[in-house]
Amino acid sequence: MRRHNSAMVLAEVLRRPGLSRAEVAAATGLAKATVSSLVDRLVAARLVDETGPQSATGRGRRGTGLTPSPTGPHGLGVEIGVDYVATCLVDPTGGEHAHRVHPGDNRGRAEGDVLADVARAVSGAHADAAERGVPVGGLGVAVPGLVDGKGIVRAAPNLGWSDVDVAAALGGDLPVLVDNEANLAAVGELAAGQGIRDFVLVSAEIGVGAGVVLDGAVRRGTHGFSGEIGHVCVDAAGPECSCGARGCLERMAGPAAVLADAGVRTRAPLDLALAELVDRLSEGDDRARAAAHRAGTLLGLALAGAVNLLDVPAVVLGGGYARLHPWLAEPVAAELDRRVVAARWSPTRVLASALGARAAVVGAGQAALRAILTDPDTYVRRVTTA
Amino acid sequence: MRRHNSAMVLAEVLRRPGLSRAEVAAATGLAKATVSSLVDRLVAARLVDETGPQSATGRGRRGTGLTPSPTGPHGLGVEIGVDYVATCLVDPTGGEHAHRVHPGDNRGRAEGDVLADVARAVSGAHADAAERGVPVGGLGVAVPGLVDGKGIVRAAPNLGWSDVDVAAALGGDLPVLVDNEANLAAVGELAAGQGIRDFVLVSAEIGVGAGVVLDGAVRRGTHGFSGEIGHVCVDAAGPECSCGARGCLERMAGPAAVLADAGVRTRAPLDLALAELVDRLSEGDDRARAAAHRAGTLLGLALAGAVNLLDVPAVVLGGGYARLHPWLAEPVAAELDRRVVAARWSPTRVLASALGARAAVVGAGQAALRAILTDPDTYVRRVTTA
Repeated sequence: MRRHNSAMVLAEVLRRPGLSRAEVAAATGLAKATVSSLVDRLVAARLVDETGPQSATGRGRRGTGLTPSPTGPHGLGVEIGVDYVATCLVDPTGGEHAHRVHPGDNRGRAEGDVLADVARAVSGAHADAAERGVPVGGLGVAVPGLVDGKGIVRAAPNLGWSDVDVAAALGGDLPVLVDNEANLAAVGELAAGQGIRDFVLVSAEIGVGAGVVLDGAVRRGTHGFSGEIGHVCVDAAGPECSCGARGCLERMAGPAAVLADAGVRTRAPLDLALAELVDRLSEGDDRARAAAHRAGTLLGLALAGAVNLLDVPAVVLGGGYARLHPWLAEPVAAELDRRVVAARWSPTRVLASALGARAAVVGAGQAALRAILTDPDTYVRRVTTA
Repeated sequence: MRRHNSAMVLAEVLRRPGLSRAEVAAATGLAKATVSSLVDRLVAARLVDETGPQSATGRGRRGTGLTPSPTGPHGLGVEIGVDYVATCLVDPTGGEHAHRVHPGDNRGRAEGDVLADVARAVSGAHADAAERGVPVGGLGVAVPGLVDGKGIVRAAPNLGWSDVDVAAALGGDLPVLVDNEANLAAVGELAAGQGIRDFVLVSAEIGVGAGVVLDGAVRRGTHGFSGEIGHVCVDAAGPECSCGARGCLERMAGPAAVLADAGVRTRAPLDLALAELVDRLSEGDDRARAAAHRAGTLLGLALAGAVNLLDVPAVVLGGGYARLHPWLAEPVAAELDRRVVAARWSPTRVLASALGARAAVVGAGQAALRAILTDPDTYVRRVTTA
């Protein structure tokens, strides 16, 4: 009961910062005394700040305004990339801090070595938090692969991983939430708020994945394996993909394919190769532009299938595709217009991710934070009994 | 408030038929007097029956058992097919009655003429209800096309319709709910209950459409245009579809394509041509079997895209595909196995629709019924003030 009420009180403060205890009581229907004692706990755990007397609103007496605390428990976001490990901190108001990227090719390395690097990066992020004088409330970890409902990485082909328990490997006392990088990028995108609550975010790193968002919630599917748009077939007679099938989007229009088509040497980190591609595209290089156009057409074909199936009003290009958005948007939109049956009544917007390459790590931090904000009492008990 | 409580009481009776008023009060947390007066209204409107003293359960006194009334308001389902109009009645316990199919090719006819036929079929269904001595509570209408959130048929290409207000055309005092036939087939499938709450139902009539069901709810999309799997591309270089795009599933593996491939003359009603195809398949006709195998492979390719995106544990073959299930299931399953990245951890079941060709019309009746059962008080007020 206290757990439920505590969540209700905090949700109200997050939704309308500045409310007094009495106003929270009125909004939630809880007794004033109950609200006051819940708020005291939230203040003690630094989830809520008291900001001095509210400005007078004309009626009733002044109360102390309550706001989410920017120095409260932070979500620590981690992204295990194929050629980097990234971390960041997200504060209770949603602000992101201390974004760090540690380059390093993780392909073909022993998973224990990679996880040791990840643990070092996490230690670094804890040091960032300590330096800012803020607590870390939990970890979110983005992984480029299939993550099941229990957080086990069933397969991350580009890392060569199968059945890896990342949460156990990172150990520690904090809750650890592990999810697919595109799902977490979608969480980041939702939090960044381009004002859309229904979309498919397609994210290109070394691999290509998607986050499916309906009614403001990421749909992880029955087993957690949704969003595998990289293995949607765009040409049944196409070349064989690492997954064993033929003509998958990732194989034909993923970053490696675009770079090869454009005549840009693929190398680690991918970021550098993409930067070179963007340079050539900006200069109007014909081969680069033809490669981007071809990739955009195939991406549009796959996205048209998703939009025909789900009727979402927007698709979001994320990760590497976000950087290529200026050259991909037109062919993607053209395919959507050609292939989406309802296009005449509901044209689909083709947006670039607001967070670009940071989406997954920020989304990981947001997800860790959200786990606390939607169940603050569990956090409060954890820190007050520690 | 009464509206909410009335819905709660009826939901409890539907969930656990046989409860007494006191047991409903205990289960809902409402006062016994409140429950009793709500039940009186539900009984007066024939939504609930009193079934005499409950059998003794060993504790407490006996009460009158409450059950959903099979003679209460029925949902009248209508399906406007391309070459038939069908109707049925669905009683408050979910039982279906008086299923009627009126053959007749509706292609190229003026929409007013078709709607006049539909109105006649609806009158016939009302007569069926009158003969049974049961009231009709509302209509559900299944249409093979894009239906927007307001129930306007934006486009039904195989009927040649655009912007048709079916509800207004059918007039009358009853509420009319209009939706895409595949969405309503999915409603029927959910009610028929093969025990799955997450699936994609792909339904083949003249056209091919899908109902996307997640967490037990049909996802209609932002504008109501979801489920257009018939226009998912299965071969970018394929033949042109009526929608203007190339290589759509409907064009390459819809009933017309399968029949042509198999060398069976397409004719109205489609049903007869499919019956001939089924005969040939049963006899082991090579050409027919090759055609079904080819269609199943393409269907599997399109469904693999949907499963990769949504991670649903089952696909359901509906309408014409349900009749071909014995020959489609294997190639569909093979493609799912080949193309779904998570197939190893979550093999997808390939089911035949439990309702077959009746799914859309039964789903239409179920949807009309559900509108009453989820808001019984509105119905009660309607019939008691009439």
